[in-house]
Amino acid sequence: MFLPNLKSLKDALKCIEDNQKVLGTEKIFLKDAHKRVLAEKIVSSHDFPPFDKSTRDGFAINSKDTLDISESNPKSFKIIDFIGAGFFSGKTLSNYEAIEISTEAPIPSGADAIIMKEDVSVNGDEVKLFSKVSSDDFIYKKGKDIKKREIILQKNTLIDFQEIGLIASAGYNEVEVYKKPKIKLFVTGSELVQPSKTLEKAKIMNSNQFTISSLIKNSGAIVEVEHIKDDFDSLVDSINQATKEFDAIITTGGTAISKKDLIFDVVNSIGKVLFRGVDIRPGKLFVCGIVNDTMVFNFSGSPVAAMTQYDIFARKYIFKMQGVDFYLNFVERELLFDFSSKLGVVDFSRFIADDDYVIKMVKHSSDATSSLIDANYMFIDKNIEKCKKGDLVKVLFFNSMTW
Amino acid sequence: MFLPNLKSLKDALKCIEDNQKVLGTEKIFLKDAHKRVLAEKIVSSHDFPPFDKSTRDGFAINSKDTLDISESNPKSFKIIDFIGAGFFSGKTLSNYEAIEISTEAPIPSGADAIIMKEDVSVNGDEVKLFSKVSSDDFIYKKGKDIKKREIILQKNTLIDFQEIGLIASAGYNEVEVYKKPKIKLFVTGSELVQPSKTLEKAKIMNSNQFTISSLIKNSGAIVEVEHIKDDFDSLVDSINQATKEFDAIITTGGTAISKKDLIFDVVNSIGKVLFRGVDIRPGKLFVCGIVNDTMVFNFSGSPVAAMTQYDIFARKYIFKMQGVDFYLNFVERELLFDFSSKLGVVDFSRFIADDDYVIKMVKHSSDATSSLIDANYMFIDKNIEKCKKGDLVKVLFFNSMTW
Repeated sequence: MFLPNLKSLKDALKCIEDNQKVLGTEKIFLKDAHKRVLAEKIVSSHDFPPFDKSTRDGFAINSKDTLDISESNPKSFKIIDFIGAGFFSGKTLSNYEAIEISTEAPIPSGADAIIMKEDVSVNGDEVKLFSKVSSDDFIYKKGKDIKKREIILQKNTLIDFQEIGLIASAGYNEVEVYKKPKIKLFVTGSELVQPSKTLEKAKIMNSNQFTISSLIKNSGAIVEVEHIKDDFDSLVDSINQATKEFDAIITTGGTAISKKDLIFDVVNSIGKVLFRGVDIRPGKLFVCGIVNDTMVFNFSGSPVAAMTQYDIFARKYIFKMQGVDFYLNFVERELLFDFSSKLGVVDFSRFIADDDYVIKMVKHSSDATSSLIDANYMFIDKNIEKCKKGDLVKVLFFNSMTW
Repeated sequence: MFLPNLKSLKDALKCIEDNQKVLGTEKIFLKDAHKRVLAEKIVSSHDFPPFDKSTRDGFAINSKDTLDISESNPKSFKIIDFIGAGFFSGKTLSNYEAIEISTEAPIPSGADAIIMKEDVSVNGDEVKLFSKVSSDDFIYKKGKDIKKREIILQKNTLIDFQEIGLIASAGYNEVEVYKKPKIKLFVTGSELVQPSKTLEKAKIMNSNQFTISSLIKNSGAIVEVEHIKDDFDSLVDSINQATKEFDAIITTGGTAISKKDLIFDVVNSIGKVLFRGVDIRPGKLFVCGIVNDTMVFNFSGSPVAAMTQYDIFARKYIFKMQGVDFYLNFVERELLFDFSSKLGVVDFSRFIADDDYVIKMVKHSSDATSSLIDANYMFIDKNIEKCKKGDLVKVLFFNSMTW
């Protein structure tokens, strides 16, 4: 594709951002909220813990009663009650009284410390102590973790393992979350067929529908896949129809300039092309447009280029539809070999990197699906032509991008 | 809990490994296989690409016909056919003939190079070239990415974005995968109630069911949650019944020694306790047993301890049920403060770390649900008492453990 005016990566991202849509919200049960995004801030209804509680199985006592106690001067306390977790005692300790208590149970009135079961001896309704204790021993104070009315999570937070537990602790059984984006994935290309052990001449197995739909699902969205013909009129109909039912459209294939590559023309005729071509490699052949107020991303047919386009452009857009800002989280690694890049092109080639080094290249063609296995991106900015062994380079780990 | 003989972490892991079960397999459609685990190796049915193909829109020619061509000595070729992607030409090029071709289309017989559309001028059925080309220009050779009969993925590989595309390229529309483990999660504790804005005295919001069930789902398994009473007989019935319907059982709470903490006794009476207590912190109060040939993990009631127990023990077991080896993937980071650990205990405390440093502690109580946000584990082995600012320490990033 000959494109005299490639959009810069920065301008392309800005252009998409300027056309960003954010979805509406819905209330769902917390049990269904893992990997959804908060559309409200979470304010604790309670102190957490909600009361001073015991962190051990043992006896609640008043530490002042233990000041003189030692191994050689033990003292007996009268056991006046038992408190299991989930229960409380209505009694108040008087001098030299104790209440047996379970882990998680509330500290009774008159007590300020717990002594562990294994540090005492029990005889009927008496417990003998052999050491003094300090105030607050094995007590987890009310509100120590979370204070009542404290904002514990902000709006637009992705709800993962940790967050879902916190939200429960704060007393929410339902939460307001952003709706899941519904994405239509159109796979174009007369050459593409469904995977099969036999392959007709000139046909190629359709792998994009699997990779890109998995990426979409991993971004919190719902995807519907359709393979459509490379035909202007049916593309017009399909894209028009999809804009009514979906929040965004992704197509693969049809970004090159060819008699049989039509998607640019379709978007151009029924909507507005925002830009065509970006100064990145792989993934230069990226078309972005708006049809009926709906974003249409046209990815390359090449699987590696399409995945790169997803990672750089579509992921950010789909995250943000749900209120989440996504940034490419670059880290620095030392290069173990010399590498030449192309001036004027932002390079997102695939390399094998670990916690310290960029170790080696993978196969380089943007058609090499196999180059994606175990790889990550190395980012070389467009003003850099040569990287030398020992240089620090920017790496983008695939697993730093997951939802 | 007083436990004179804590199992070492290493022995505890070995003991679980010795009782590992691996599930059976099933055939599913590839479109449903994202995040499932291969139970067969993937062998390519085809070369990929399946034929020499064009990587540009342009003209297929024979490079020998272009040897004398230059800007000042252009030459015209006769266009004898057009090949769109997905189609092929039955014609063979003779001298000074060209066939127009799309990206992804197969190279016709007699051609060995592609010249890009933007480098030629077309006039009717003639195309004029202004430069010579080399053999293989813009041709992606048959089998360059994957060879026919090449093993491209081994059994027991987790199918992620990259793998699912590769499997499609190899011609598989269905794959044999391990079954998803069905896990029963019993949450015990009379003190626990469902999240609500009002809270009865002595009650605590049940957050474990949300955190642990999310962790289980994130390990490729299916989870069913049930809150059960702290009652010996009903625990016996519930656990017995669950062993018939589920592949493993996880319980939270009931690992301490207390009148109201019964799960150890239940497992001990109807099955075999493998060990009780491990030399880690948090998470020491971990009981592991077998009932009716089904693994039962008894986690602490404390949310942070339970999550740590999941990450260290249960995750590995659930991954392996599906054929995947899971290792704690420690990386080294520089400590920015002094830190004291406890001799004899393997420390998995929560710290905030980045790509270079362990920056600071989080709240330390194993009850502090809030301590999990943005945190990762720092691992301090049991023979280490003090870590100093500047030391390299082992860190386990939460996101290195995801499925």
